[in-house]
Amino acid sequence: MHILITGGAGFLGQRLARQLLHHPQVKRLTLADVMTLPNFQNTADQAANQAANQATDQATIVSRQVDLTNAKAVKALITPDITAVYHLAAVVSSQAEAKFDLGVAVNADGTRNLLEAIRHQATGAQLIFASSLAVFGGELPDVITDKTAVTPQSSYGTQKAIAELWVNDYTRKGFINGVVLRLPTVVVRPGKPNAAASSFASSIIREPLNGQAAICPVDTRLPLWLASPETVTANLVHALSLSNYNFEANRTINLPGLTLTVQAMVESLVRVSGQSTADFIQYEPEESISRIVASWPSQFEVNRAIALGFTRDRSFEDIIHAFIKDNLT
Amino acid sequence: MHILITGGAGFLGQRLARQLLHHPQVKRLTLADVMTLPNFQNTADQAANQAANQATDQATIVSRQVDLTNAKAVKALITPDITAVYHLAAVVSSQAEAKFDLGVAVNADGTRNLLEAIRHQATGAQLIFASSLAVFGGELPDVITDKTAVTPQSSYGTQKAIAELWVNDYTRKGFINGVVLRLPTVVVRPGKPNAAASSFASSIIREPLNGQAAICPVDTRLPLWLASPETVTANLVHALSLSNYNFEANRTINLPGLTLTVQAMVESLVRVSGQSTADFIQYEPEESISRIVASWPSQFEVNRAIALGFTRDRSFEDIIHAFIKDNLT
Repeated sequence: MHILITGGAGFLGQRLARQLLHHPQVKRLTLADVMTLPNFQNTADQAANQAANQATDQATIVSRQVDLTNAKAVKALITPDITAVYHLAAVVSSQAEAKFDLGVAVNADGTRNLLEAIRHQATGAQLIFASSLAVFGGELPDVITDKTAVTPQSSYGTQKAIAELWVNDYTRKGFINGVVLRLPTVVVRPGKPNAAASSFASSIIREPLNGQAAICPVDTRLPLWLASPETVTANLVHALSLSNYNFEANRTINLPGLTLTVQAMVESLVRVSGQSTADFIQYEPEESISRIVASWPSQFEVNRAIALGFTRDRSFEDIIHAFIKDNLT
Repeated sequence: MHILITGGAGFLGQRLARQLLHHPQVKRLTLADVMTLPNFQNTADQAANQAANQATDQATIVSRQVDLTNAKAVKALITPDITAVYHLAAVVSSQAEAKFDLGVAVNADGTRNLLEAIRHQATGAQLIFASSLAVFGGELPDVITDKTAVTPQSSYGTQKAIAELWVNDYTRKGFINGVVLRLPTVVVRPGKPNAAASSFASSIIREPLNGQAAICPVDTRLPLWLASPETVTANLVHALSLSNYNFEANRTINLPGLTLTVQAMVESLVRVSGQSTADFIQYEPEESISRIVASWPSQFEVNRAIALGFTRDRSFEDIIHAFIKDNLT
């Protein structure tokens, strides 16, 4: 299998690549990103991979700097030997809200460019699209199901919802073999805050554990729908095995998660690392972020995802422990 | 008010124009279509209108031949004095299924061109978008509500669903003042059959009443969601009065209709015009049409639309009588 990951320089793209590198069926991995690809291209990983690849079954890995808004470049990216594409690249929520045209260009039109390229140059290839709970918003039922109408209250959510519809129709037409995975908010992300409205959800855990101040911009009673990077990555890999599954009409799946209020997240942090750690959190409500995050749902009925073999985290404390183990030890 | 109608040469566009011509607040009406505009531009209507306009309060009417896929032409169409746009132009369902790229270009990208032009040149203008029950499909609840997920099983439905999302987001951002009206299947249309999968629903009434054979391509037990041209036109006009209504999060409205099986429609025809008329109907199931039409829902909860002042037909026999009165007498 030759697998392409868009957003390959991103946090999830990099994690996913590390997993797929050791997948028995993956022979070739292409990481595409609008950014240069730091971890594989310019570091020891790449060299190590190339060397290892000679001797073992590990996949060959290639990096490509591509702007998805450039249809011609996307066309060149999609070669007929590609068997599956993970489409993770996106302009994140707060940025898509602030820069409407950029969000549209990347999240909606960029996705279309990718689908068109697969349709014509790698017809029927698997497409695993990372969507988001941000497709939901406004007045919602207590629990979201597969039958709940999407009513996004952000441009990011709108663009993801539109891309979901494209993926489903391109699949129905036989142009691609698509599946849409609606990711929960991923915590705890390592590194720096980004322009996602949900960025604080990682910051309020990560920064205190690093002995740094973090700002919580939302009401602590706000419930969130969360999954760890480990679980989300494992679920992305799992989707690859569903290429022959008969999804019937609907290819859009709400991935499993945990429902926690911000307060409960902080309490978990206290239990894992003590009150002095949690004291690094400053509470400074910010309307623009609160409005977006509060419009997202926090409870999902995910029987279908579980039946399909997708997994969920056991507890938020486990998530914090995993973050510490991976990043702070 | 200066009102623009896209699809102005179409059946609904023409009907709507005739209504708006006498609307007390409408001073100017622009009819745009990819086709030349027959009824107003080239016939006595136009001359009569121009003459009448001098003496009465009737609106000035102008015709423009414009292809919505041409962003530049759409830009030129939208002048700052436009107060409301009815967006009726579309590639219809069977055609959009057969010609995927054309459907995408007109129904999705053409709508985007229009929204962009309004955003930049007539910011905040009203946009009344004619969507369709075809946004629904697959495994559906018995009764569709405002909270039902759209899962289109046709490219037409997909493109309409995408345009609905754009209209909502452009409105939320303050670029336009949009509302989406999901039209039932409109019967009885005069004239010739078109490439809509639902075209037969008019044909099986219209052709027999004209003493001509009609083909029914679907199972007669299939229930449909129907509204007359009069009611749909009246509801389109009514939407104009909702420009200051606070819709909150969701601008998409399922318009009222009647639920009837094809069998019940034929029985109404028999009651109005006798069995000999109904004998003109030939039953020749066609899979490509049946599949699309059977994927559409036939029952809707429309309390919200009724509360907003939208209306529904009294009976299908009334609809047939109105067709006869308008077209055959």
